[in-house]
Parts: sequence; C-alpha cells; structure tokens
Amino acid sequence: MLPIISLGTNLVKIEQIQLAHGSGGRLSHELINGLFRRYLSNPYLDELWDAAVLPEQGARLALTTDSYVIQPIFFAGGDIGKLAVCGTVNDLSMVGAHPLYLTAGYILEEGLPLPDLEKIVASMAETANRAGVNVVAGDTKVVGRGNADKIFINTAGMGWISKDVNLSPRNVRPGDKIVVSGSMGDHGMAILCQREGLEFDTPLASDCAPLNGLVQAILTHPGIRVMRDPTRGGLATALIELAQSSSLGFEIQEASVPVHEGVRGACELLGLDPFYVANEGKLIAIVSSSEAESVLATMRRHPLGLEATMIGDVIEAHPRKVGLKTLLGVTRIMDMLSAEQLPRIC
Amino acid sequence: MLPIISLGTNLVKIEQIQLAHGSGGRLSHELINGLFRRYLSNPYLDELWDAAVLPEQGARLALTTDSYVIQPIFFAGGDIGKLAVCGTVNDLSMVGAHPLYLTAGYILEEGLPLPDLEKIVASMAETANRAGVNVVAGDTKVVGRGNADKIFINTAGMGWISKDVNLSPRNVRPGDKIVVSGSMGDHGMAILCQREGLEFDTPLASDCAPLNGLVQAILTHPGIRVMRDPTRGGLATALIELAQSSSLGFEIQEASVPVHEGVRGACELLGLDPFYVANEGKLIAIVSSSEAESVLATMRRHPLGLEATMIGDVIEAHPRKVGLKTLLGVTRIMDMLSAEQLPRIC
Repeated sequence: MLPIISLGTNLVKIEQIQLAHGSGGRLSHELINGLFRRYLSNPYLDELWDAAVLPEQGARLALTTDSYVIQPIFFAGGDIGKLAVCGTVNDLSMVGAHPLYLTAGYILEEGLPLPDLEKIVASMAETANRAGVNVVAGDTKVVGRGNADKIFINTAGMGWISKDVNLSPRNVRPGDKIVVSGSMGDHGMAILCQREGLEFDTPLASDCAPLNGLVQAILTHPGIRVMRDPTRGGLATALIELAQSSSLGFEIQEASVPVHEGVRGACELLGLDPFYVANEGKLIAIVSSSEAESVLATMRRHPLGLEATMIGDVIEAHPRKVGLKTLLGVTRIMDMLSAEQLPRIC
Repeated sequence: MLPIISLGTNLVKIEQIQLAHGSGGRLSHELINGLFRRYLSNPYLDELWDAAVLPEQGARLALTTDSYVIQPIFFAGGDIGKLAVCGTVNDLSMVGAHPLYLTAGYILEEGLPLPDLEKIVASMAETANRAGVNVVAGDTKVVGRGNADKIFINTAGMGWISKDVNLSPRNVRPGDKIVVSGSMGDHGMAILCQREGLEFDTPLASDCAPLNGLVQAILTHPGIRVMRDPTRGGLATALIELAQSSSLGFEIQEASVPVHEGVRGACELLGLDPFYVANEGKLIAIVSSSEAESVLATMRRHPLGLEATMIGDVIEAHPRKVGLKTLLGVTRIMDMLSAEQLPRIC
C-alpha cells in the first residue's frame, strides 16, 4: 500500500500511463490523489498509511483474494473494474460473510490510456458503493510495454460472519435440493462472442453482479447448507467440487437448468457446453428439502434471483460424482474439464 | 480464491505453466494441490472454500495489499516470493499490527518453468513461517506468452493491533528523534547491479526481511510516534511523506545515515543517490527524544537492527519539508523525485 500525501495533479497533461506512475515518486502520488482517491475515497483509505486500520469486528472473519486478467477489459455488461469488485464480494458472500472491505492492487502496462483507467476505477467505485463495501488499501505497479496486457487488478476482500451462519459442504445431506439463482453461461459467452466479433439477434451480456444482497436474503432461511458461485469452470465444475467435498452424489436434471436462448445458440454454434461456461452473478445453493421451496420464493423476490430454479437432488448413489439426467432420459457422469474452454475469462 | 478438492497430480509430466493451469479445471486443481498446498498448507487454506473463515480477533484490524512485479525474479538476498511475504508483513508492521494472515494472488505467464514456480512458493512458505503468518487464501491466473513477465504476485495481509498501540504522523512533536534500523539502499542496488551485470569487490545483496519481530520489540517503548518502511522512493521519499503528514520539518544529518560501502560505490559509479534507493528490510521510526536512546538500544539487540542509527530531528522550521545537512555543512531541501530511478524494483 502506497502512502501518499501531496495533492498536485498533472494528470490532464499526461494521457497515458508511464513507468514513472509506478515509481513511488511524484507521478505515483499524482495518479493516486488525482484519480484513485477521487473515486474511492473513504476514511480508512484516506489515512494513506502502510496498512488500513479497521475497527474490531466482534465476529469471525472471511478473507479472500482474486486477480482479474479478463480480456477484453470492457465488455457487454461490465468491465474489469466491476468484475474485480463483484468477484471478490461474491467469494466472501459464498461463505456467508457480510463483505466490508476490499483492497485493490493494480498492475498497469505502460501506455494504458488514462481515460480507460479512469473508467475502470469509476466502475469499481460504483460497484463497491452498490455492494456496500469500501476499498481501504491500494497499490499500483507499472510494467513496461509488452510485460502485461493493459491492466490486471487484484482485489482481496474481508467480511464478517454472523454467529448463526455455518455453511459447509459437510452440512449437505442426502435428499437436499440443489438450486441455482438464475441462467447459466451468460458471462463467459458474452466475453467469447465479443472477442470473436460474433453478433446474435439476442445480444449477450455478462451477468456480472454483487451477490451479497441476495445472499443475505436467503440466509434468513436456516436450511441453507452451502453455497458456491459457478465462475471459472462453470456450473459443472462447481457442482463436481461440491459433490467431492460433501462426499455425496448429485443428480441434475438437464432440462431444469436455465440457459438463455442467446447463450444456448452461441454455445451450439461454437460447440461449447454452457454448463462449463463462467458466470459472475449467479450462485448455487444446496438447501434442505423442507426449505427448498421457500428459499426459491425468497430468491425470486430479489432482482438477482428472478429466474431461480431447482435443478437437482443430493443422493446417496455415485458418491462424489455429479450425474446429469439428459433430455433423452439417460444419466451421464459429468467430468471436470482438463482445461477450461476459454482463457482469461475473469 | 479457487476451491479445489481432487488430489491427483500430473505435475511431474508437465514442466511449464500452460494456459490450462489457470482454467479452473483439472490442471488448475493439480497445480494447487500438487504445488501450492504442498508448501502453504494450513487449516484455513485447506478448507478450500471461496473465502477463508478466520476466528474473531477482538482487536482493531490492519489490512494492506501490494503487487510484486520485480525483475529479475531471483536475486541476491531473495526472490519474488520472499519479497511478496516480507513487503506485506512489513506494511502491516508499520501500523503496529501483528501480521496474521496473507492472501496470495499469482498471475503466471504461459511457459513459466514449473521448477521456478516451485522455488518461489517454497521461499514464500519459508518466509511466512519465519514471520509467523499463514497464507489462508489464494488465486492463480495464467495469461498467454507476452501478456505478462514470468510471474507477478499480489499479497494482501491482515493483522491485529493491540489496544495500547496508536501510531500516527499526527503524534509527531518538535524535538522528536528520527531513527533508521540499518543501512539504506541495499535492496535497490542489489537488483540494479544484477540487472546490469555489474560486479563489485563487496557483493551486494537485498536486505529483504520480515520486520514484525523487530517492530514488536520496539513497540514495548511507548515513545514510538510513527514508523514507515522506506521501499520504493527510498529514505528520502518516506521522510518527505512523513514530514508532510505530520506538518513538521525534519532535519537529517547526511553523515549519520548508514550506507554500506558497496552500495555507496555502486551509486557513485551509476550516478544514483542512495537516499532514493529502495529498501525491503529497514524501517524509519520517529521517537520521543527521551526514549530515543533506549529504542536504539532495543533495535541493536535485534538481528535486523544491529546498525540502527539516529539520523535526525523533528523541528519547527521549514514545516512539511526535509532538510539534509550535508557533509559540507550546508542544508538542502530534499525533493520527491518525479520518477524513481529504477522501475520494477519490487
């Protein structure tokens, strides 16, 4: 974390990131005061010490990190800044935490246009505000042209966990229901189609969104066993991980899994399976069967859960494996892919 | 943070990082289980949830982040992994926190030799162990060749702050003494000379070290006002930042600042000022005059403070500026450099 004090700014005169913006010297200070603090200011960040000093929480804490290297950095439905806030807020939410604080580490390539950086930081600020979190510590490094690709962002996140929340794959029981909060594959297919220059009648957009509001709503139900957000590797990978860590079998009804028409069409065209495509604003919840319907109803009352659906069951058969009951009525076991279909999706 | 469960490993068969290692699929899992967890395992990390769940602290918290893009990634006195632990442990220590938990976000370039990654992770583990911290959450991304430079690491860090610790530039008073824990410029000059292929009679080595032990020792003295580690921008930039944030003037005796003979020689040869060269295992402390001698004595009893020295005074003259009393007896005001002398020093 770079402590900075001076408030002069020459940013208007310099249109691109230079190596000196990462030097710790005057240009670094101007970048941080003239841009980052303008958007991200809050009492913790503004102290500009080596680390942010935060109040005692009186609760268990959650801590997570993710680096974002998505390409392109601006896409339908979001940008790398929005994604860097949502992804980390969502990781905290999946363990049942109330996200509170983020850190932001920027690695910038020399030559990045400053207006692009400003759009990204403004988008982070807007998303952080929507999610109710503060960026309390930051760091900026600059590397020469060709040593990075425009901008990489790391966000680490901290939150607190209420005493009565206890989510774990170990809580999953045979008979539990598997629920998703909405359609699968939107983020990954939006990115891929934009990269490939493909256009469809139904324009695709990333589902990138902070899930903490939806999560706090459904955590009012004590029957939530465990949650996961199906990002890299998609629904299939997340389900396989959950089956393995709960040591139980899952059976998924292929026909029940919501997939938007445009995503389905693009996947068919490109030979991809939407169940392996990344999402950035959806969650999987495993819920006791007695509460599954009421959890679904709660989800559907939230703007990010309108298309929430029950997609399958936890079973004792084929433990640690996920069976997909296809439209043809046969059950096939889903495998983890060796590689994902798309690099740099988040 | 990538949750992973399976324990198969093909790492021995694959000698270089591939894009698929960042996919979230099987190769990602194998990398994490076969390498990262082998070195960094602890009960928080091993749960492999979306976020680490940590106990209540019952204290104020410190949170910080830094990305490390140093080039070369292996250098005399350390490597990017050791640096990524020390830098973040030190940022926490500077606000008086006991560092507890780190997160680690890796951005890997396709083609990075796996033995290099293993050396770096092993070095992180060893340094974390020495500093008494755990890496509790991690993330790995892979980008194509030419889209990064071998490896970038982000570490965020969390620690707790004891009730009786209250460090702030606002505590600084005229008459206070300015102390450094040892020689200046070692890290930056070791990196530069290695990059340029320069060799000297006295081989240069980075001072990269975790300062939390030294800090806890000196915090037994209530007269510590504020601390800072002079990294990017060196001693001069850190002092200017402290003078500005305390709204007081500093006067530094040039002859008192310890600079190793080899660093001095290399700086002369290359036309650099050692006061602007980065350190990674040194701190500046501002101390009440009545306690300055006993703080120095405490520092000198610690292996990382053997060369601790009093270098100057806090004064009322020239507020917010740092005067350097040179060997010739004249005082010149130190400026913040517009750019640092060396890019990618940390």
